[in-house]
Amino acid sequence: MFSAVDVIRAKRDGGELTTAQIDWVIDAYTKGVVADEQMSALAMAILLNGANDREIADWTAAMIASGERLDLSGVGKPTVDKHSTGGVGDKITLPLAPLVAAFGVAVPQLSGRGLGHTGGTLDKLESIPGWRANLSNAEFIARLSDPGAVVCAAGDDLAPADRRLYALRDVTGTVESIPLIASSIMSKKIAEGTDALVLDVKVGSGAFMKDAEQARRLAETMVRLGDAHGVRCTALLTDMDTPLGRTAGNALEVTESLEVLAGGGPADVVELTVALAREMLALAGKPDADPAAALADGRAMDAWRAMISAQGGDVDAKLPVAPESEEVRAESDGVVARMDAYAVGVAAWRLGAGRARKSDPVSAGAGVEILKTVGETVSAGEPLLRLHTEDVSTFAAARTTLDGAIDIGGSTAKRQLIMARIGG
Amino acid sequence: MFSAVDVIRAKRDGGELTTAQIDWVIDAYTKGVVADEQMSALAMAILLNGANDREIADWTAAMIASGERLDLSGVGKPTVDKHSTGGVGDKITLPLAPLVAAFGVAVPQLSGRGLGHTGGTLDKLESIPGWRANLSNAEFIARLSDPGAVVCAAGDDLAPADRRLYALRDVTGTVESIPLIASSIMSKKIAEGTDALVLDVKVGSGAFMKDAEQARRLAETMVRLGDAHGVRCTALLTDMDTPLGRTAGNALEVTESLEVLAGGGPADVVELTVALAREMLALAGKPDADPAAALADGRAMDAWRAMISAQGGDVDAKLPVAPESEEVRAESDGVVARMDAYAVGVAAWRLGAGRARKSDPVSAGAGVEILKTVGETVSAGEPLLRLHTEDVSTFAAARTTLDGAIDIGGSTAKRQLIMARIGG
Repeated sequence: MFSAVDVIRAKRDGGELTTAQIDWVIDAYTKGVVADEQMSALAMAILLNGANDREIADWTAAMIASGERLDLSGVGKPTVDKHSTGGVGDKITLPLAPLVAAFGVAVPQLSGRGLGHTGGTLDKLESIPGWRANLSNAEFIARLSDPGAVVCAAGDDLAPADRRLYALRDVTGTVESIPLIASSIMSKKIAEGTDALVLDVKVGSGAFMKDAEQARRLAETMVRLGDAHGVRCTALLTDMDTPLGRTAGNALEVTESLEVLAGGGPADVVELTVALAREMLALAGKPDADPAAALADGRAMDAWRAMISAQGGDVDAKLPVAPESEEVRAESDGVVARMDAYAVGVAAWRLGAGRARKSDPVSAGAGVEILKTVGETVSAGEPLLRLHTEDVSTFAAARTTLDGAIDIGGSTAKRQLIMARIGG
Repeated sequence: MFSAVDVIRAKRDGGELTTAQIDWVIDAYTKGVVADEQMSALAMAILLNGANDREIADWTAAMIASGERLDLSGVGKPTVDKHSTGGVGDKITLPLAPLVAAFGVAVPQLSGRGLGHTGGTLDKLESIPGWRANLSNAEFIARLSDPGAVVCAAGDDLAPADRRLYALRDVTGTVESIPLIASSIMSKKIAEGTDALVLDVKVGSGAFMKDAEQARRLAETMVRLGDAHGVRCTALLTDMDTPLGRTAGNALEVTESLEVLAGGGPADVVELTVALAREMLALAGKPDADPAAALADGRAMDAWRAMISAQGGDVDAKLPVAPESEEVRAESDGVVARMDAYAVGVAAWRLGAGRARKSDPVSAGAGVEILKTVGETVSAGEPLLRLHTEDVSTFAAARTTLDGAIDIGGSTAKRQLIMARIGG
């Protein structure tokens, strides 16, 4: 017989929780026997006192056991998912899922909505007229067989303990804990039933993890968790000091993704898409596949059209455009030395692309277009950014946010996009 | 404009909360704007990261401001209260309040009920037929004028933030924090309106504070808080490794208190009662009063009778006696070297004298009588304790609790009862 207070006190006093204590507390929390105020105290104790690998593995297993674990063995193809810890302009899932599916690998991509300065993949795809995020489990599995790539919302029965805990952490200042982040991400991905998983762990101002050492620890923790549950994992540590690509905003990012699928698009988006595709294809037993070729020759675009159509999207429809726009101009001549990802993300959010609360709507057309990015030369007065919104009153807040976010100087020392590779 | 998450994160990350943040969070919590799950995360962050004197003073002031602060200036006498941090067999309030009142000093003693292994003064007095714990503010003030000593429950309007927070800490493993304990005790005592306060901070197995260094820090923190709010304070650090006196249980402790008021009673109870009375009388401007004499000559007993009668108690009624009793006998010859206060407190609780939940009833007659205490010589087979209960099925649990709680050896090195004096 356990008591919530005893479990909280054990962790509070720097102890290690037993497997039985963790199983009990997660199960009791899912059933409402352990109350929110008890779980938030425990989450704070974990955040401040940490948890070892065994505790994190047990916590993850208990969250998986709080719901169903999908069986994708009927799909008839290898399954590989990708998870990004979230950044600004991170539209990689959009070209990546069809690109990998073009090689006969199924991509089960359960995604989320945006909150705060980071966009959500579902919000982006919902800017395509007709496209549906919610699928039944049966439909999810059928779509994995054909066309092979599925981006959709996670069902309510997948790791319900995590769903409840995630919402609680959001309002109790207990988000920034590697044990809690790692177990949250991995419990959902393992419950989803994927054979393998590639993790894109972001580092920098626009990411959760501001420094590379923390990001590496998170990546290593998640790779070990995957291995322990029979899900093959590799992780890339990638830069998020600078926004990814040239756009941050829902329809704007779909448009940019279509450029990549058409064989063009910004070099950094292409680089990361191809690198992640190589990792996914290697885990699926296709190390020799050439994803760059599939972008160039139209196979990835065909897979995109099939994926979007299968979920009701009109692939030929014109995407929404916000009616109002304004430009942010360079104050001096020089090279763009720095463009702060966090500030650009917050600006896009203020313009209407993101939400402050889960229940808020988002604007499909709002966001930020980056006309000159890090390393490019500008003259004073030349446009750097174009801001898009449905509501002109948001321009002022967006401009305030961007104040001091862009440095123009003589030269730049931009960080490499792909900083490290872990696992595999 | 504040947000609960920002306040939690500030303390979580080791920062110092501002006065404005503390005022806001306590006020918002009292109003229900800050939720229990947010306050419990903040309480855990305070427990683990601490709070400095300024933060504790602000936290206390904010809790006082959450309700009313009584004005006792109309009482017409100096007012001095006593607070004990709680122990086993701690019936000192019962003889002490009338003893001090016998010298023309008003004693406003807002008390609580027992929870777990520590008894509550109100539970003890409620074993007297007719005695009422609940008084209106007007009646409370009238009784302070005449007869001069009042022991009663705190009103709902006194530090309501503390009332809510105390209940929350109890279920979230956030009790054992010096900043939270000190501010909880002092906010109620300061709001009560007393001119001065003597603190009895217990140290040992039967107390909250297991070691003297922690107890000293708590005492010093509370004395400083009193001084900051114009309430003159002194504190005694006193031993709680061994139960106080010869009884633990409600009516049993009233009976023992009557022995002390009649000029007899156990030496340790008399010693502590007289020492605390001297401190209280000194704070009330009567440093030369002789409390031992007032116990010997019946003045304290007269004041007791007036105090109990004024709240409806029948001072001549026979006190309840539990119908069942059993003895715990010595296993060997020797001197009682150790009697664990915590074990005796839990045994009394198991026998029915205490409660596990706030809503549980308590038995008036149940408890433990200590026939041989530390330092006394026993022979094998001689009775050490007499257990009293209304329910014979509780004997087994009480005996299990007492297993290993009493050592009999060649000699003992009992700690001094009064270990230190702080403040004044």
